[in-house]
Amino acid sequence: MYQFADRMGQVSASAIREIFKALADPEIISFGGGSLANESFPIEVIKEITDQALTEKGPKILQYGITEGWPALRQAYVDHIAKPKGINATVDNVIVTTGASQGIQLLADVFLNPGDVVLVESPTFLGVFSVFNKYFVKCIPVSMDEKGIIVEDLEAKIKEHNPKMLYTIPTFQNPTGRTLPVDRRQKVEELASEHNFIVLEDDPYCDLRFKGETVPNIKTFDKTGNVVLLNSFAKIISPGLRVGTVLAEPEIIQKLTVAKQGADTHTSNLSQEICAEFLNRGLLPGHLEKIRPIYEVRLNTMLNAIQKYFPEGTKYIEPEGGLFIWVELPGKPDVLELFKKAVNDYKVAFVPGIHFCKNPDDGIRHLRLNFSSSSPDQIEEGMKRLGELFSKN
Amino acid sequence: MYQFADRMGQVSASAIREIFKALADPEIISFGGGSLANESFPIEVIKEITDQALTEKGPKILQYGITEGWPALRQAYVDHIAKPKGINATVDNVIVTTGASQGIQLLADVFLNPGDVVLVESPTFLGVFSVFNKYFVKCIPVSMDEKGIIVEDLEAKIKEHNPKMLYTIPTFQNPTGRTLPVDRRQKVEELASEHNFIVLEDDPYCDLRFKGETVPNIKTFDKTGNVVLLNSFAKIISPGLRVGTVLAEPEIIQKLTVAKQGADTHTSNLSQEICAEFLNRGLLPGHLEKIRPIYEVRLNTMLNAIQKYFPEGTKYIEPEGGLFIWVELPGKPDVLELFKKAVNDYKVAFVPGIHFCKNPDDGIRHLRLNFSSSSPDQIEEGMKRLGELFSKN
Repeated sequence: MYQFADRMGQVSASAIREIFKALADPEIISFGGGSLANESFPIEVIKEITDQALTEKGPKILQYGITEGWPALRQAYVDHIAKPKGINATVDNVIVTTGASQGIQLLADVFLNPGDVVLVESPTFLGVFSVFNKYFVKCIPVSMDEKGIIVEDLEAKIKEHNPKMLYTIPTFQNPTGRTLPVDRRQKVEELASEHNFIVLEDDPYCDLRFKGETVPNIKTFDKTGNVVLLNSFAKIISPGLRVGTVLAEPEIIQKLTVAKQGADTHTSNLSQEICAEFLNRGLLPGHLEKIRPIYEVRLNTMLNAIQKYFPEGTKYIEPEGGLFIWVELPGKPDVLELFKKAVNDYKVAFVPGIHFCKNPDDGIRHLRLNFSSSSPDQIEEGMKRLGELFSKN
Repeated sequence: MYQFADRMGQVSASAIREIFKALADPEIISFGGGSLANESFPIEVIKEITDQALTEKGPKILQYGITEGWPALRQAYVDHIAKPKGINATVDNVIVTTGASQGIQLLADVFLNPGDVVLVESPTFLGVFSVFNKYFVKCIPVSMDEKGIIVEDLEAKIKEHNPKMLYTIPTFQNPTGRTLPVDRRQKVEELASEHNFIVLEDDPYCDLRFKGETVPNIKTFDKTGNVVLLNSFAKIISPGLRVGTVLAEPEIIQKLTVAKQGADTHTSNLSQEICAEFLNRGLLPGHLEKIRPIYEVRLNTMLNAIQKYFPEGTKYIEPEGGLFIWVELPGKPDVLELFKKAVNDYKVAFVPGIHFCKNPDDGIRHLRLNFSSSSPDQIEEGMKRLGELFSKN
């Protein structure tokens, strides 16, 4: 009966929703989502900050706020996140969003016409497909190797498709955990300047590094204003608060502000104040020191379990941080079928690799395993069950 | 240098932004925005609820949530808001949004193709223009009299334009303060069923009624599922928390969920839990009893001041609630010019009526005055100054 818009035909209830359903089943050990460790949340300090904030500036927090973002948070982001990363920015370079997803959507609003081409890593974050599909743009996959995007293929795709945008997660990529080396980052920036497209550098995982050296953001090489950096408080403080940032040239920030005004007026002041005060109290570095070992133990438990339980010939990269391991099963596995069996018969969830790919070959034998949201015991048990299933294959 | 999307040419930095700038000037008495009385916020109880929520369910609140909304809030909305309004609903009829603006945008996502027609009241909430413009739809104004939308004109516009949607604020309309009588509401529903378009019933002000009888929602007459009801916690608890709801048939809610997943994943869990617990503690009725008199005094102060200070021949309707008075000045005033003088020379802000109109005739001699965000003393002083300016004219 209802006449829905054409764009809704482009958007399928994405795999994320099915995974969330599996997550909601308490019987299932889930390596499917991207949830954080419940033990990692700084609940006590958030309680204290909230109490103080409502006491000292209650009416300001509960009143309408500014579309660009809570002034204290824009400044705190510049001081405590952008500058330590070597990015020279002022508050005029920043808009606060309700998370990276909103940042992507607002940038699509601002830059993308129907028919435009967006280059994406293959595989990539599956959420971007549902956003970009709504805008009737073409997502063209760029090939990756174990270090991330292959710049020769990127250059070929640029020449072939004249893209408006490249969407990339250069650090601990979702779903592969891969990190792009510095020379390739420089090359990406050079290509963007030369061919005048926007690099959307989505960087939510960078601070969850357990070993190795920090690699500078693509944004640090930006001389022409073509790089837009998304950061998020989801992985470093809390995803439930829904706070992220976009860092870009003021001209872009102004357009994003107009788009956000229509989208939701502004982000929750209380959520923003919590993040601002967390940064301004200087709590982030210590908090990261505290939570990284939680995740490192889980990562190592999962890596060991792959070796112990998964069939011979299983391939994977050991990530130096982030939330995910990308696993390639040997032979010609039917991973979608294995997913069903895993959930129904073995009560373990993961995400089949194919959901992350425009080019099925890049994920057909693969699965994404999340190690952050399960305890080491659950990881051991779940991986044992998966190993049993995969070895039968 | 940047190649922005075509839709951004359709969206001007709306008048709202200019007004927010005037609002930010502490020297200015502002009747321009739609802010709430700072005295009206239940700060202490929100502090207590937040503390208890973080203590008892901290990890759940700080973790990722569900796109459809915090389960406790969906249920509390059904029990404490929908049902008391005589609307038979379950949680499957509800999605939580970050406020009415997001509700409008998600419904545009779900229903509107480029070229579609949306009927709007003339004048109407100016924020809808920036949303609908982004979707390349045509906004066609429907005439109003002092009771709201004129159903004969609505019927004529339906036959002429075959609309996909009618956007209406039937109670204490923004900007006019008008309330649509029950017989017209029934007629609107009948026309929607007969001609199969969506009625977007935006109802954020309904609970700020100071006198007169409650008028049932258009949604209460809905037999075919064509009416979609937007409610908001902005005016009854706090706008800064960014929480609203959409109530519709489950088929529509499912599509909205897909659209929201791409837009922002979910609404802040903490904001949602605050609203849920506020409702579940049964605090809303008492809170409304407490805040209504604050606004009623301000409304009456402003109405008296119009009579005392504004030039003879000034026309206005006495609203029975809401946040706004719609004033028509006598003669042929240049209201845009008066606005500049008011802000610069008299340090008082309002919104020129023309910003709310597709059809300039419906607002060219008009201004919208907000009485909720200034104290009675400020209202007295600001109106005196405006009266002086307008009488010179």
